[in-house]
This record gives sequence, structure tokens and C-alpha cells, in this order.
Amino acid sequence: MYTIAVLPGDGIGPEVMKEAIKVLRVIGDLDSLVFSFQYADVGGCAIDKHGEALPRETEDLCYKADAVLFGSVGGPKWDKLPPNQQPERAALLALRRKLSLYANLRPVIIYPQLARLSPLRLDIAQKSCDILIIRELSSGIYFGMPKKRSKKEAIDTMYYSAEQIRRIAHLAFQAATTRNKSLCSVDKANVLETMVLWREIIEEVSSDYPHVTYTHLYVDNAAMQLIKDPSQFDVLLCGNLFGDILSDEAAMISGSMGLLPSASLSTKSSPTGSFGLYEPAGGSAPDIAEKGQGSQYPGMGLDLYYHNRNVKDLFAIASDVLHTDVVKLLESAHESTDPKTVNISPFTIPKLIANIASS
Amino acid sequence: MYTIAVLPGDGIGPEVMKEAIKVLRVIGDLDSLVFSFQYADVGGCAIDKHGEALPRETEDLCYKADAVLFGSVGGPKWDKLPPNQQPERAALLALRRKLSLYANLRPVIIYPQLARLSPLRLDIAQKSCDILIIRELSSGIYFGMPKKRSKKEAIDTMYYSAEQIRRIAHLAFQAATTRNKSLCSVDKANVLETMVLWREIIEEVSSDYPHVTYTHLYVDNAAMQLIKDPSQFDVLLCGNLFGDILSDEAAMISGSMGLLPSASLSTKSSPTGSFGLYEPAGGSAPDIAEKGQGSQYPGMGLDLYYHNRNVKDLFAIASDVLHTDVVKLLESAHESTDPKTVNISPFTIPKLIANIASS
Ligand SMILES: CC(C)[C@H](C(=O)O)[C@@H](O)C(=O)O
Ligand SMILES: CC(C)[C@H](C(=O)O)[C@@H](O)C(=O)O
Repeated sequence: MYTIAVLPGDGIGPEVMKEAIKVLRVIGDLDSLVFSFQYADVGGCAIDKHGEALPRETEDLCYKADAVLFGSVGGPKWDKLPPNQQPERAALLALRRKLSLYANLRPVIIYPQLARLSPLRLDIAQKSCDILIIRELSSGIYFGMPKKRSKKEAIDTMYYSAEQIRRIAHLAFQAATTRNKSLCSVDKANVLETMVLWREIIEEVSSDYPHVTYTHLYVDNAAMQLIKDPSQFDVLLCGNLFGDILSDEAAMISGSMGLLPSASLSTKSSPTGSFGLYEPAGGSAPDIAEKGQGSQYPGMGLDLYYHNRNVKDLFAIASDVLHTDVVKLLESAHESTDPKTVNISPFTIPKLIANIASS
Repeated sequence: MYTIAVLPGDGIGPEVMKEAIKVLRVIGDLDSLVFSFQYADVGGCAIDKHGEALPRETEDLCYKADAVLFGSVGGPKWDKLPPNQQPERAALLALRRKLSLYANLRPVIIYPQLARLSPLRLDIAQKSCDILIIRELSSGIYFGMPKKRSKKEAIDTMYYSAEQIRRIAHLAFQAATTRNKSLCSVDKANVLETMVLWREIIEEVSSDYPHVTYTHLYVDNAAMQLIKDPSQFDVLLCGNLFGDILSDEAAMISGSMGLLPSASLSTKSSPTGSFGLYEPAGGSAPDIAEKGQGSQYPGMGLDLYYHNRNVKDLFAIASDVLHTDVVKLLESAHESTDPKTVNISPFTIPKLIANIASS
């Protein structure tokens, strides 16, 4: 029996989470896994109920659990709070720090069935695109100190230690080894000292993986190449800020933000392998919350960490469980004249499953 | 008579510059302007000849000139130099700092004639897309101190003063006033202190421009919206790093990197209005240099700062001067099986002309 901390959060988070758990149960059954789902408040709703975005008991539950399923946090209601108390910083960034989540894995696949939904030209979208974005999540300009602000000026610090870069580089080269053996490291070594160090460490680590071909790309060029021809990438390794930007761009080319799942792995281990937090990367989408739309797009991220089954199987499982035809739903949303309905976030069935199944 | 400092630089820079000057002469004639073109070395070729990327005499010529035409710098030959001596940092970034170039204007237009070349779906590319990206160029993480690196760790500092933000914000709101009266400011206020200040100052400055509608977008979301529907943007205002990334992404959707011109304006004035440095944003493209391809794509940036003439006129002028059919050339490059030929950089006919014509 595995304990899963379920943190539905705000906006469409709860709706998405509800459907995710339905599917998770079914897939668990197929592999004879038993889950105990334990719920806790996080984000804006936690501010409303408990006065803070990450209450002590939520934090404790995460420490005790084998994995965390995270919905989404934030919304206009809490935008006027001081920045440090807002749900994103006080809950999501705090959890990343407290749980030592250093590796964020965001796979981006353009499914042939859905290529027409991509904003890219069909001849580009139809080439096989299967990218694993690996984003360093524990350092960089997100957490570097000092960070301060007055009425007159402000600073943030982009920091990287060689050790932090080495750790994520090994994970990325290892991932490339199990995939197409190609890794592209994104930096801005022509301007930033942190990124000169980044490039040096990538060179160093690469010598341990002679079978992986690797290249370096400046982040501005990477932003361009991703839309020019995403099929050129296999593993795309980025620092924290560049990974944030490029993973959103890449999510869009898959046809819907809602298709992007996200696994954030810890330096600590758990019975399920690396301890991790799993979330849809679609955000809280407050504009479509509580309209039942969050539950209309289940299953799309299903296969991503579940390599034993193919996309079609997983669409079928999701359709069965949720009594909806996932592909049809996505298509009709796309053709709808209301642009909002295209941005509906499905959920992630996490690496958790793969980890558990193989443990 | 106006003195133009011409800095052709490396790679395709010299080829592009040669064609740019042909067209500049013709257009100058149309408006009875006389230019004196004065050449100087910059970048890698200056390292080879004079031992440094920005020789004293090149710098002095820039101070004396009414405007600077800049080709491109850098290439594999100089990649092994210590980062601070490499052409990009030692010449381009140094010039930006020394000439106080604080405002980088990068207009991105998808020409109806060229919409098919865009990697975006035709229904998206065919909507009118005419974005003016305004990038703060003098501050941010490019120049913030401290910046340092050892074998063990490295830091860069993202710095913004309220005054620097206010200055670029006014320029952007003024630009919006002369366009579609809509401004989108890009930040990452949910994570960075500099960007909280950024957002505060934009709010403050906006009250001087009640007729401009403005919005804020997080940089990750902006990277997504740019490919989802670029027609939603008019003026897009960014800090230095975000502007670097988003302008390259936006350049790509126009169909070719080579279509993006770039004007960098100074805090200082000159007879031509704000003093400025004008360049194609396509880079030095060493892989296609000296094959005559740099001269094959003239004129595409022509209209961008030359509001008196329309695109068709300018295509015609460029074609006439250079005896080439610009649209046909671009199309055939695009259909070519050699992907390199698509990335050919044309040139910019700069705001200089518009400034001179109206002075
Ligand atoms: C909500 C925000 C703090 C977060 C980030 O910037 O990391 C989000 O954009 C993401 O990508 O997970
Ligand atoms: C060459 C490089 C230093 C430069 C930058 O990062 O500003 C370039 O990418 C640009 O956009 O002008």
C-alpha cells in the first residue's frame, strides 16, 4: 500500500485531480497496486481556510507520503497579496525547496492523432516529436540569494554550483541513454557566468556517456528551433528559468497546454524510487474552473511515464474509465469558437506508477 | 551629409552590409540624403587584425558618427577564447554599454506574401501579425553586478532600477500610442523581485497613457501565446533577457530569422534623432558565409522603419537595386532541401532613415 498526498489546490486543480484519481485507481488495479489517497489544502484555498498557502499539516503529509499529486495553485483572488504570500511562491516554490525537488521532467509529445491541433504547420507537427525537457528545479535565479527590492531598485541572483549542475546533467545523460541517445543542453554562455560554468560541467559529465551525442544551444536559438523543427530534439536540458520558458513554449506546440505533465523528483528516495511531486503543467485556469471543463480532458498525459503501454491503450483506458472519447473531446474543444475551451488541463498519471511498478 | 559608421564584422556580416548599403544609397537618393560611409573592424576579424574585438579607432568612429550600421560578430574560430574576449561580449555587449543603447526595437511582421514560410499553421500565420518588440537593452542580468565564476560556483545578478524601467516603459507606451494602442508587458513577477518592481513601474507609467490598453504576461505564458496567436500583440515590452528569447522566437514565426531587423537606440541624441545602432538580428551564420548567400536576401527589413512606403514598394526597390526578386528568392530558399539556406540574413534599413527624413 502506497500513501499518496493529494493536494488539489485552486481553480481547475480539484476537478483535474478527481479524474486523475479515477484513472490512477484503474491502472493501479491492472498492476495490483493499492493506493491510500490522503487529502490536504494548498494554495489560495489554504490561505482562505488556514491563513497560509502551505499549512504545517500539508507539509507534514508530504513528508510522510510516498509521492505527492499536486493540482494547481493561484488565481486573481490572491493576486493582491504581498508577493511572498501568494500561492505560487508560498506553496509551489516552497514545496520545491522543502522537498528538495531538483529535477523537473516535462515530456512533450505531438500525438499523430492530435497533430492538427498544433499551432505548427502540419508538415512540421506530423514529424515525430517526442522531447523530454529536463529542467533543473532547485537552484538558478529562482532561489539564488540575495533577492531584494526597494522602491528604487531590485535584484535577483542567478546562482549555480558545479555540484548542482553535475547532478542534473547525470540525470539527463542517463535519460538520453534510455531514449534516442541525443542530448541538447541549453544555456546563455555568451553572456552569463553561471552558464559558462554550466557548459563546462556538461562537457565534463558528457565524457561518462560516450554513446550520447550532445550539443549546446543558446536559449534564444533554442526558442527558435523548437518551433522551426521540434523533431530535432530528444532530451532538452535546461536551467530553472530557461526550462520554465521553453517547456511552456513546447507545451503549446503539442496542441494544448493541458497535454503537458510534469514530474518533479527529489534528491531523497522513497519506496517508489525517487520521491516525487507530480502535476499537470496547465495551471489553475481560474477562468474555466467549476464549469465541469476540467474533467473533460482526462488521460492525455497518461502514457508519458508509463512506457509499458502505448498511447492508444491509454486513451482507451481513460475513455473507458471516464466514459469519454478523449481524442474527440480535444478535437471538438479545438474547433469550438470559445478559445478558452482549448486550454483545458487534463492530468498526469505520474512516473509514480512506473516507479512503483518497477520497484 | 550624414556620417554612418559601418561595422561589417564576421560571417555573413560583410555580405549583408554590402547589399544594405546599395539599397540605403538608393533610398537616400529618393529623399535627397547624402551619406558618408566610414568603415571599421569589429568582432573576430578585429581580434585577428588588431588583437581586440573592439579597437579604439572603431569605438571612436562610433562616437563621431551620426549612426552605426552593424553587421554581425562571432564564429567558431573565436569560441575557444576566454568568454570575456569573445566577439559577442567584447564587441557587441561593449558597444551597447559604451553607446548607452538602452532601447532595442525589433519589429516582427508576418507578410501576407510570406505567410506560407511561417512554421505556424496558415490560418494562424495569415491573421495580421505586426508586433513591435521593445527590449530593455542596458541593464538586467546582462550587466548587473556582481558576476563571477570559479571552478565550484558562479553567479550573475539581475538588476533593475526603477529609473531604467520607467525610461523604457515611456518609450514603449509612446510607441503604442502611434500604433494600435495596446501594450503587453512581459515579466516573471511571480518569482523575481526585479520583475515585481518592473510590474509596479509599468502600472505607474501607464497612468500617463490612458488611451493605451495594457496587460501583463508572465514570460512563460508569453512564449506560449506568441505561437498560439501572435496577432493578439501590438507592442510587446520586455526586459533584456526575456526580450532576447522572445524576439528570436518571434523572428522565427515570421518565416525566417533573416527577416528581423533590430534598432538599438541611445539615451544620447544625434542629428538623426536618438543616436542608434542598426543591425540585422540574424547573427553571423558562419556556415553560409562567403558563399554569396548573404547577398541573396536583401530588402526584407526595408519597410520596417520606413513608414512612408509600403511593403510592396520596398520589395520593388530592393529588387530593382539588387536585380533580384526578393519574395521568389525567399520562397525558393524555403523549398530547398538544404535547411541552411532558409536562415539567411538580409539586412535592416534602419530607423535612421525615418529619423533623418523627419528631421
Ligand atoms: C507558477 C510558477 C512559479 C511556476 C514556475 O515558474 O516554475 C510555473 O510557471 C511552472 O512552470 O511550474
Ligand atoms: C550575441 C548575443 C550576445 C546577443 C544577445 O544576447 O543580446 C544576441 O542574441 C542578440 O539578441 O542581439
